[in-house]
Amino acid sequence: MPNTHYDIIAIGNAIVDVLSAASEDFLAEENINKGSMQLIDADRAEMLYTKMNAGHEISGGSAANTLVGVAALGGRCAFIGQVADDCLGKVFQHDIRAQNIDFKVPLRDAEIPTGRCLILVSPDGERTMNTFLGVAQYLHSEAIQPEMIEKAAILYLEGYLWDPEQPRAAMREAIKIARKAGRKVALTLSDAFCIERHRDDFKQLINDGLIDILFANEVELKSLVQHDDFDRGVSEVAEKLPLLVVTRGPNGAIAIKDNIRTETLAKKVERVVDTTGAGDLFAAGFLAGQARDLSIAASLEMGAIAAAEIISHYGARPERDIKKVIESALNVSLN
Amino acid sequence: MPNTHYDIIAIGNAIVDVLSAASEDFLAEENINKGSMQLIDADRAEMLYTKMNAGHEISGGSAANTLVGVAALGGRCAFIGQVADDCLGKVFQHDIRAQNIDFKVPLRDAEIPTGRCLILVSPDGERTMNTFLGVAQYLHSEAIQPEMIEKAAILYLEGYLWDPEQPRAAMREAIKIARKAGRKVALTLSDAFCIERHRDDFKQLINDGLIDILFANEVELKSLVQHDDFDRGVSEVAEKLPLLVVTRGPNGAIAIKDNIRTETLAKKVERVVDTTGAGDLFAAGFLAGQARDLSIAASLEMGAIAAAEIISHYGARPERDIKKVIESALNVSLN
Repeated sequence: MPNTHYDIIAIGNAIVDVLSAASEDFLAEENINKGSMQLIDADRAEMLYTKMNAGHEISGGSAANTLVGVAALGGRCAFIGQVADDCLGKVFQHDIRAQNIDFKVPLRDAEIPTGRCLILVSPDGERTMNTFLGVAQYLHSEAIQPEMIEKAAILYLEGYLWDPEQPRAAMREAIKIARKAGRKVALTLSDAFCIERHRDDFKQLINDGLIDILFANEVELKSLVQHDDFDRGVSEVAEKLPLLVVTRGPNGAIAIKDNIRTETLAKKVERVVDTTGAGDLFAAGFLAGQARDLSIAASLEMGAIAAAEIISHYGARPERDIKKVIESALNVSLN
Repeated sequence: MPNTHYDIIAIGNAIVDVLSAASEDFLAEENINKGSMQLIDADRAEMLYTKMNAGHEISGGSAANTLVGVAALGGRCAFIGQVADDCLGKVFQHDIRAQNIDFKVPLRDAEIPTGRCLILVSPDGERTMNTFLGVAQYLHSEAIQPEMIEKAAILYLEGYLWDPEQPRAAMREAIKIARKAGRKVALTLSDAFCIERHRDDFKQLINDGLIDILFANEVELKSLVQHDDFDRGVSEVAEKLPLLVVTRGPNGAIAIKDNIRTETLAKKVERVVDTTGAGDLFAAGFLAGQARDLSIAASLEMGAIAAAEIISHYGARPERDIKKVIESALNVSLN
């Protein structure tokens, strides 16, 4: 197998987050299911934006957030996703490249605008996402650069992007390329409602042995197995996969590899400001550890530290030097 | 004198801030004077943006930040500034209106884009601003709505906007309208380099008795009087004005009214993340107090609390409920 040029290549929604504080009342009035992600169209996006509080615009997208975390921890990354040649598209392109992540998909003409996610942050830090996918949902198979995928140790796929047809086809194609090249494939289940929409597909991918690493949170895992017995659910899924990682919010996270279950506690955070990106950054820390051939325990610890940083401020991109924090906590060098 | 409809109407740069972390080395390489504001053209903006780290986009503009603070503290506000009909212009318009601030200046066609300020935040939290004014520098006198200015208790002017010709003429016009209607005029000196460029104008305005309230920080005050003796400088300026307010960073702030000097200490902040907007929010707290006819001491205290909140996170718009904090600290109701 030839050497890898990237630790991770990810395919995901290329979107800019618009974060703003929202009361519980506002969520109720707007009939928005707290804590979830829902897809919205252009009209709804316009209407909701008009009503919501002043915002911060910060580049986002679940898999892109994860890559930014991996890159901040010294990993070599590339991203595949679609933005338009408009202001938000240029912001996304700038921000991901500024993190030393290869991003080569050409900007599309701005007829369909760059996707955005209106994120309503409740007083308790919980985030509710209203995603207008925009041009992100028109990611073509042609945007999948086989030579980049062949050179990446892990292909990381964002479950959210399973919704629109073209990116789903593109991701199926990417899985084939990665497996043919002997690379690993990781999938994040993204959201319980996303699983509702695509449970059969996700199960099929797992049953066909196409997924090497699966990321889920507790709610998503239960949605996948369609029952509430967490430990039984974990066993059922873990036996079909080389590696399963399940995050449990304030209760930490677990990983099951070769029937061995490893746990980590969540890190204490002085004040939870905004949980946007907690799962994304957990995956980042974990994957960065795996890319360094660190143990499962150390990788989980890295995930927990990265997640703790991200929930202590607005937005899903790190603000502090998480590499330094992790190096000092684990007594490792990530250079 | 008819009743006021607004506590404060402000004229200022309508710009969106792009904040990103930068090392001291980067500032040195780019020949950027740490802590200052410099005006840059479109080419330099493009070049600097390409080189800088990933950013947060948050609506900004000095006077606009101040208004957002006043409005968050229950004040009635209106803003006059120019944005274009482009993505950042819509972001600015949304964000200021979402704070219940009247903003009626029509968006201009997007030939000249909305202004932006590339803010490089050093590891110590100090910010260095690189401002591409864009369409903000083409604020016409026609945008000055006399009936709005006549109905505002205080007209608040941003020194930065004295640079470009058209807004300078518009502000001179606004001063006439306000004084004719018997309203007060406040000016913030904005920046020492701005004073270098316009010292004669600023002194003339003060000597002509056109300014009722002057805001400056210590460096700006010294630049205005052109010597380093702080106390003597304060006396020299204070005797020409009804009210002088000088902020001193970690050393608090002072106000001189009718020869009486009142001081406040700076509030302790656990971690200074980004000092962008510290002066703007100090002015906000102070003006909100004055709008409520609170004492100078209480108004200074409100300024100090608002400034402390803003430097504890990225961006110059409040994230926590500063009204609640101030109400509880001062035992007042701001409803």
